[in-house]
Amino acid sequence: MKHYLNGIFPPITTPFNSDEEIAFDKLKLNLSRYDKFNLKGYVVFGSNGESVFLTREEKIKMIATVREHTDDAKLVIAGTGSDSIKETILLSNEAAKSGADYVLVITPSFFQKGMSHEALLSYYLCLADSIKIPLIIYNVTKFTNVNILAETVSELSSHQNIVGIKNSTENIAELYEIVNIVPNNFSVLAGTGSVLLPGLQAGCVGGVLALANIAPKECLDIHKKYVEGRFDEAKEIQNRILALNKAVTATYGVAGLKSSMDMLGYYGGLPRKPLQPLEPKQKKEIENLLIKAKLLN
Amino acid sequence: MKHYLNGIFPPITTPFNSDEEIAFDKLKLNLSRYDKFNLKGYVVFGSNGESVFLTREEKIKMIATVREHTDDAKLVIAGTGSDSIKETILLSNEAAKSGADYVLVITPSFFQKGMSHEALLSYYLCLADSIKIPLIIYNVTKFTNVNILAETVSELSSHQNIVGIKNSTENIAELYEIVNIVPNNFSVLAGTGSVLLPGLQAGCVGGVLALANIAPKECLDIHKKYVEGRFDEAKEIQNRILALNKAVTATYGVAGLKSSMDMLGYYGGLPRKPLQPLEPKQKKEIENLLIKAKLLN
Amino acid sequence: MKHYLNGIFPPITTPFNSDEEIAFDKLKLNLSRYDKFNLKGYVVFGSNGESVFLTREEKIKMIATVREHTDDAKLVIAGTGSDSIKETILLSNEAAKSGADYVLVITPSFFQKGMSHEALLSYYLCLADSIKIPLIIYNVTKFTNVNILAETVSELSSHQNIVGIKNSTENIAELYEIVNIVPNNFSVLAGTGSVLLPGLQAGCVGGVLALANIAPKECLDIHKKYVEGRFDEAKEIQNRILALNKAVTATYGVAGLKSSMDMLGYYGGLPRKPLQPLEPKQKKEIENLLIKAKLLN
Amino acid sequence: MKHYLNGIFPPITTPFNSDEEIAFDKLKLNLSRYDKFNLKGYVVFGSNGESVFLTREEKIKMIATVREHTDDAKLVIAGTGSDSIKETILLSNEAAKSGADYVLVITPSFFQKGMSHEALLSYYLCLADSIKIPLIIYNVTKFTNVNILAETVSELSSHQNIVGIKNSTENIAELYEIVNIVPNNFSVLAGTGSVLLPGLQAGCVGGVLALANIAPKECLDIHKKYVEGRFDEAKEIQNRILALNKAVTATYGVAGLKSSMDMLGYYGGLPRKPLQPLEPKQKKEIENLLIKAKLLN
Repeated sequence: MKHYLNGIFPPITTPFNSDEEIAFDKLKLNLSRYDKFNLKGYVVFGSNGESVFLTREEKIKMIATVREHTDDAKLVIAGTGSDSIKETILLSNEAAKSGADYVLVITPSFFQKGMSHEALLSYYLCLADSIKIPLIIYNVTKFTNVNILAETVSELSSHQNIVGIKNSTENIAELYEIVNIVPNNFSVLAGTGSVLLPGLQAGCVGGVLALANIAPKECLDIHKKYVEGRFDEAKEIQNRILALNKAVTATYGVAGLKSSMDMLGYYGGLPRKPLQPLEPKQKKEIENLLIKAKLLN
Repeated sequence: MKHYLNGIFPPITTPFNSDEEIAFDKLKLNLSRYDKFNLKGYVVFGSNGESVFLTREEKIKMIATVREHTDDAKLVIAGTGSDSIKETILLSNEAAKSGADYVLVITPSFFQKGMSHEALLSYYLCLADSIKIPLIIYNVTKFTNVNILAETVSELSSHQNIVGIKNSTENIAELYEIVNIVPNNFSVLAGTGSVLLPGLQAGCVGGVLALANIAPKECLDIHKKYVEGRFDEAKEIQNRILALNKAVTATYGVAGLKSSMDMLGYYGGLPRKPLQPLEPKQKKEIENLLIKAKLLN
Repeated sequence: MKHYLNGIFPPITTPFNSDEEIAFDKLKLNLSRYDKFNLKGYVVFGSNGESVFLTREEKIKMIATVREHTDDAKLVIAGTGSDSIKETILLSNEAAKSGADYVLVITPSFFQKGMSHEALLSYYLCLADSIKIPLIIYNVTKFTNVNILAETVSELSSHQNIVGIKNSTENIAELYEIVNIVPNNFSVLAGTGSVLLPGLQAGCVGGVLALANIAPKECLDIHKKYVEGRFDEAKEIQNRILALNKAVTATYGVAGLKSSMDMLGYYGGLPRKPLQPLEPKQKKEIENLLIKAKLLN
Repeated sequence: MKHYLNGIFPPITTPFNSDEEIAFDKLKLNLSRYDKFNLKGYVVFGSNGESVFLTREEKIKMIATVREHTDDAKLVIAGTGSDSIKETILLSNEAAKSGADYVLVITPSFFQKGMSHEALLSYYLCLADSIKIPLIIYNVTKFTNVNILAETVSELSSHQNIVGIKNSTENIAELYEIVNIVPNNFSVLAGTGSVLLPGLQAGCVGGVLALANIAPKECLDIHKKYVEGRFDEAKEIQNRILALNKAVTATYGVAGLKSSMDMLGYYGGLPRKPLQPLEPKQKKEIENLLIKAKLLN
């Protein structure tokens, strides 16, 4: 029963129509394309899923739709966390009913300074006791301004319903620290494309990568070649996608990711308000990076 | 029709029973005591109202209960903001139905770096068009890591349904900047007790002050003496409550505020999880500060 | 012997020729103009004096030149601090020999996280024992990323050779805190033009203001009108210079300040490398702000 | 003439006697022990060399002493940077005269917000033209709050006198970015022990590691095993020293590093003021970490 989570998971985007309502038909189209790759599954509502802009009802419908329209063999991980323990339990158990296999729960963050070791323990333990499917911790300091300590992860890893962590850090020392302190059957997942190879070398079993929305093959290849011990080939791909990864995450965020999806034949569309669309010049820059990464001619 | 919002508003705390459910009876007791003061009204769900830990349904019930159990002359301002425009409109219009007079809407913050001038304009204008009661902007950088610019506030102030801002900054230059750039009938409210007097001197018309939960008379006196031109007396009180204000906001947050309420005969109780209770030593420190501020013997 | 430091002090800029050597003749010209105002004295080497770009020998010559070429009645405060206690003592005692009346000593900052209460106590007490003229603490968090606590200032204020603090914060609560905790004969000075009036209202006795390099009369008038109790007139001036003050400090820094000096007939010139000159568009913006502040037609 | 800098360099500490004067005899003792290892050379005045607390004269004497008392085959890299270009050139050429092989120059940082691409280019190009020995860039954001971009490093790498960078980041993506953008004969060095192995995997040629002051053999072994392709063995050592590395850098800084040197038979002693000594409890923690890392019985 170990390492269920080894592999690559795109945290899919939420497509919107021009009226800013969810475009479920476009979602299905994207999923039908993704299903052809050897992806381990999908994360519905990582950060770039824009869940913070959705109502509870919309979130539930998104999760159910993804489950319904993907291959049964693919895992569905639902991002259900918020500062509210009550709301997180409610949404998580709805996600379970809709067929999600795991929940991914972001660290609470509104009262940043209060998110001590004890506070995070109390938060996750309370959830893990009440949610009917296994829980994956989600650490993403650039959005939350909270950074869960390796010690806290270690303590949480002893709860049988807490099975892994997605850590979006680029700080490789933190990934080494966590891998070293948790049991073997606790899955550590890299959280951004720029650290996929070094993360695997540190002991991560896979990655939840925004980049996998536009470069699923490249992400899968890095993983495959790493597993096969072909490190130089893995590194060549890793280096090739580095600048692109930065553009569609740190630099241009969701709007950049969606814009690049449009250029590659997926449906990206615009982010929901208040996020702003890209300028034409920014799109051109992304196009150039797609070409350099050999994703576009 | 100008300056509706001149005066002092406590952002009330949400009382919980030992099972972490809302203690509505305790809420009513607190309100009956607060009603005896010359407060202008109440904010339900400022930051220390812990709204991030509540479900939508709980929030609506809190707002309705406050409206029902306070003097009709008191204004009720409901904090309804979240990153989601849809959810904010929904909750705000429910608040209006329950009798709230204004909504207080925090800046969206999850995608901090994306919260540009344009993004914040689009967010607030969209809300102001759809919410049936007047909107007050809420800027609280220490929690959101977003700081709305004076220029943005200025542009928003021209919308007839955006009537004021609560700015929790201690940066007095920012308060001067905003007061100078908005029309006279747009209300700027100080957002923490430590800047009440300097804020009034800058042109704020009042304050939404956590401190007013435990020292309503002192806050009202600073305001009154300022209005009467008795600056030295106002300053004496301002200085007297300075250390206490820091303890129940920056240093110990909600747990500190609630603990001091308990010491003064209000019902404070514990914060909801994941916030942690104070240590006995910390309570003792707060007790000493209450004594020094002459709120306790 | 109380309040030696009441009044306005421009932290003068260091003028450079086109070869980046100090332009002592230009310095004298500037000083001869400043001497006509009722300024209390000069700070040689506040942050915008660019002392970090000068060698020890250059610093000593600057201090000596300022003392020699200003009215005897003006106080000369020499900024002599660095992380090195040895170097600071050496430079401070050279400054004393050259006729400086006070030294202004910035908090050490390289090992930011190590600059605890104890570390700052040990630093300043060690200096105060060894420097032959009185010492003024200099707190400027935006450059040092260190913020001295009111408690630390309080403890230091009991040393007879530590006589004041220049605090460049715009956080008015911190100024109130410090004023409240130090003895009456310890001078608290506002450190930026945007907080001059609120700082005086908090109990500051004057200010060390970059703005006083270009608007000495306005700074002096705010102070004078405050002392005379003409608060509305003081506030009118305070508001008038607010946007300009931001441009020549936070937004454009030394290059902006020097550029505005050139526009007003002082010698500004360029900052030393690595600081970069302004773009023409930026200069135009400053020109407009000078006009709006009624310093230029 | 490529890759002069492949290998491990301890950035040595500066030993002080109880009167806080430099203990040159202790320095020689330490060096005589270090010389027995296969270290590539020494950095005099990395951050933990406490150069910010030394006068110019003391720095020159330290550099000369190290050169004089180490094996001729060892490279001596002198940390000579400060915000002042003039001072840096002066000190660097003195270091060259004293026999230093390279200078290591930290990014200027006082005017953090002004340290743009252009500013950093002008700084380093100006130095590289005037310093008689090759220059290594030193990026250490945790102390400077400045982070040099890969693009800037790339542009600087085309100057023949700029030959490498020590980057103390733990952000592995940044190391990949830099390695990818610079020519092969430009040396990228890891700057902290926690990223030695992943840094080498990214393409770093070695490391300047505080940890090498106490664990030279372990650092050398990680490097050696990496070169030999024995990644699992390298990783075992990397993981073994991870917690210790954190303690003697991020957590306890110079005081922690020196304290651990004392425990291992080197001379550590106390840091210079204003840095504070460790508490006994903190020393005990370090002792335990030394035992866990198998450096102490």
